[in-house]
Amino acid sequence: MRKPILTLTTDFGSSDHYVGAMKGVILDICPQAEIVDITHEIPAYEIAEGAFTVSQAYRYFPKKTIHVVVVDPGVGSARRPILMEAAGHYFVAPDNGVLGLIYSENKHRVRIISNEFYFRKPVSRTFHGRDIFAPVAAHLACGTPGARFGKIIQDYVRPAFEKPQPNGKNSWRGRILKIDRFGNCITNFRECEFPRLSEKSFSLAIGMAEICGMANNYSDCKSGALCLIAGSSGYLEVSVNQGSAAKVIGCQTGSVAELTIW
Amino acid sequence: MRKPILTLTTDFGSSDHYVGAMKGVILDICPQAEIVDITHEIPAYEIAEGAFTVSQAYRYFPKKTIHVVVVDPGVGSARRPILMEAAGHYFVAPDNGVLGLIYSENKHRVRIISNEFYFRKPVSRTFHGRDIFAPVAAHLACGTPGARFGKIIQDYVRPAFEKPQPNGKNSWRGRILKIDRFGNCITNFRECEFPRLSEKSFSLAIGMAEICGMANNYSDCKSGALCLIAGSSGYLEVSVNQGSAAKVIGCQTGSVAELTIW
Amino acid sequence: MRKPILTLTTDFGSSDHYVGAMKGVILDICPQAEIVDITHEIPAYEIAEGAFTVSQAYRYFPKKTIHVVVVDPGVGSARRPILMEAAGHYFVAPDNGVLGLIYSENKHRVRIISNEFYFRKPVSRTFHGRDIFAPVAAHLACGTPGARFGKIIQDYVRPAFEKPQPNGKNSWRGRILKIDRFGNCITNFRECEFPRLSEKSFSLAIGMAEICGMANNYSDCKSGALCLIAGSSGYLEVSVNQGSAAKVIGCQTGSVAELTIW
Repeated sequence: MRKPILTLTTDFGSSDHYVGAMKGVILDICPQAEIVDITHEIPAYEIAEGAFTVSQAYRYFPKKTIHVVVVDPGVGSARRPILMEAAGHYFVAPDNGVLGLIYSENKHRVRIISNEFYFRKPVSRTFHGRDIFAPVAAHLACGTPGARFGKIIQDYVRPAFEKPQPNGKNSWRGRILKIDRFGNCITNFRECEFPRLSEKSFSLAIGMAEICGMANNYSDCKSGALCLIAGSSGYLEVSVNQGSAAKVIGCQTGSVAELTIW
Repeated sequence: MRKPILTLTTDFGSSDHYVGAMKGVILDICPQAEIVDITHEIPAYEIAEGAFTVSQAYRYFPKKTIHVVVVDPGVGSARRPILMEAAGHYFVAPDNGVLGLIYSENKHRVRIISNEFYFRKPVSRTFHGRDIFAPVAAHLACGTPGARFGKIIQDYVRPAFEKPQPNGKNSWRGRILKIDRFGNCITNFRECEFPRLSEKSFSLAIGMAEICGMANNYSDCKSGALCLIAGSSGYLEVSVNQGSAAKVIGCQTGSVAELTIW
Repeated sequence: MRKPILTLTTDFGSSDHYVGAMKGVILDICPQAEIVDITHEIPAYEIAEGAFTVSQAYRYFPKKTIHVVVVDPGVGSARRPILMEAAGHYFVAPDNGVLGLIYSENKHRVRIISNEFYFRKPVSRTFHGRDIFAPVAAHLACGTPGARFGKIIQDYVRPAFEKPQPNGKNSWRGRILKIDRFGNCITNFRECEFPRLSEKSFSLAIGMAEICGMANNYSDCKSGALCLIAGSSGYLEVSVNQGSAAKVIGCQTGSVAELTIW
């Protein structure tokens, strides 16, 4: 028997007690759960970056893994907690678009989480990670069927950062989804939707920078030169060999990236 | 059978080998232990912040969990290692007040850890986390009774940051226990000792700032305005909706907070 | 039955999805594996610091633990992946010297990892942590014999930072291997090779600073004074009581340290 796996993706950081509290709640309800941290370093309130990170990480886990995602600027307001099933995995998150890159790519079913029986009481106004998301995920891990938590809904939030928008003939307006630790700038251009760029003439403009060449890997880039790579994430990313493309370009998460193909 | 859970709270940071060494020692002695990180990002030597963090996190774990707390500026000096039982949990830590917010709230029993049989030898002068706290906690997790480690003592250290002090009529002098990742300033005023402030006239002064209003949750705060919230920790905290209260006020851990009620 | 333990030491940081992806791959192949993070905060591309960290941490784990080390500036180039057995432990890493401080100290056997049967396909050009190192380690954890992964080789990379070099009579030229969180500067002078310095006249010069005294522990150092300590790592380290020696000296990882004994 495989142990149930729960992953955690939050913007809580690693220096407070918040993540520890969530883990305590989970282990108290479901002692056999195996908890795996994806990251707690999503920049505070950055829904798009949380969406990117969980959409990249979940697929490597076994089916039936439960992914808890708490990037939740609207905690305590009317935004709803949701439970999604997609690609054989479960996702527990606030309904603010943080699961958007997963439901744009997979068949999915979304429930509102409304059954307070599975909440920790009293529910605080500021920490639903501990009081709603963690206990719901733990009960799910221990065998409570998804349907117990609430009804299927269709009107969940669809985020704007989902994909690049056409912007004239042969031109698209996308954005930087994420700048990784190495300064690679990951765009929302999927390689599979913009294939074989290396055989074409193209330009990707970000701020004042313009990238016109593809490289096969980081070592292929000339030292200090910007180049475009089909990154391990499936998206096109701008890189500098052993340097930070983000610093060279001066861009950040959310910056516009405009692709033109001739 | 539940696996024994050990939590770790330290100021070792996450970039060195220190935490890994402790985990290796624990798993070598007690293979069935489940190790959960609370945080390793307590600022170096900050006993009050370590005390706050463990006192917040421990309560969500199952009874019998063993909490190892290593914020230990006096390592290698005469300060004693202690083992505390409180609220059905175990705590292993240096005797420097880092357990102070727990023993101020709960019935407790404190032992000096003196039985060198359970230490890793030779005991280094600079890394008791590895040589004393980790192996003692691992032996405890694997069934060694608490009494084996040493005698009960009464003269353990009681810290000054425990609670606000009266400061004239209807006025109290407290302090900031912790600034969390979002810039919320958590004071040592407990909500249960200062109840129903929202129905009263009050002022909380920190540095040049003065807060006179309570909010129900972060979204309730006007954008940019400081407000007081009954935080999820049970303490009053100063917040700014989607901003850093600590930056607005210019305060830090340890700053004085003076409450006056009319 | 002990569960197989896998440790992870990388320069991936904790804010991206990379570590989560590796953990997913491992748990998908080997559900019973227990994954322990050593650190993901090795500075990007810093092979010497990765080498120091894993050589310090591995020894505290039970025999047969599998240590995965991914500090891999050459990913996608011709550098080879290797599997090493040493001191009863297994190590999976790129062949770039990152295991150098372990093979300099222990009998060891090194294999090239060439059997693509155990790789995740397609193998990306930029993320061998996920596609080669994680799946190989997971198969090893689940019982695949080491010999299946590839042949024994002798020509693996030996790094320059291994040990201090003689530099005239009674003088050695070493370097800072690591600056830890507390600002302690850990040199590559092993205490066992330079014993009883406290009974001798010596000078350790780093940049403009010169240290002439040994201390028994951090509390022994005069406040603000630099002193040399036989650190818990087995190497000599330069420390300041409750302060950062690295800031006082103005040095960094890789800085030269010259020892002279009279």
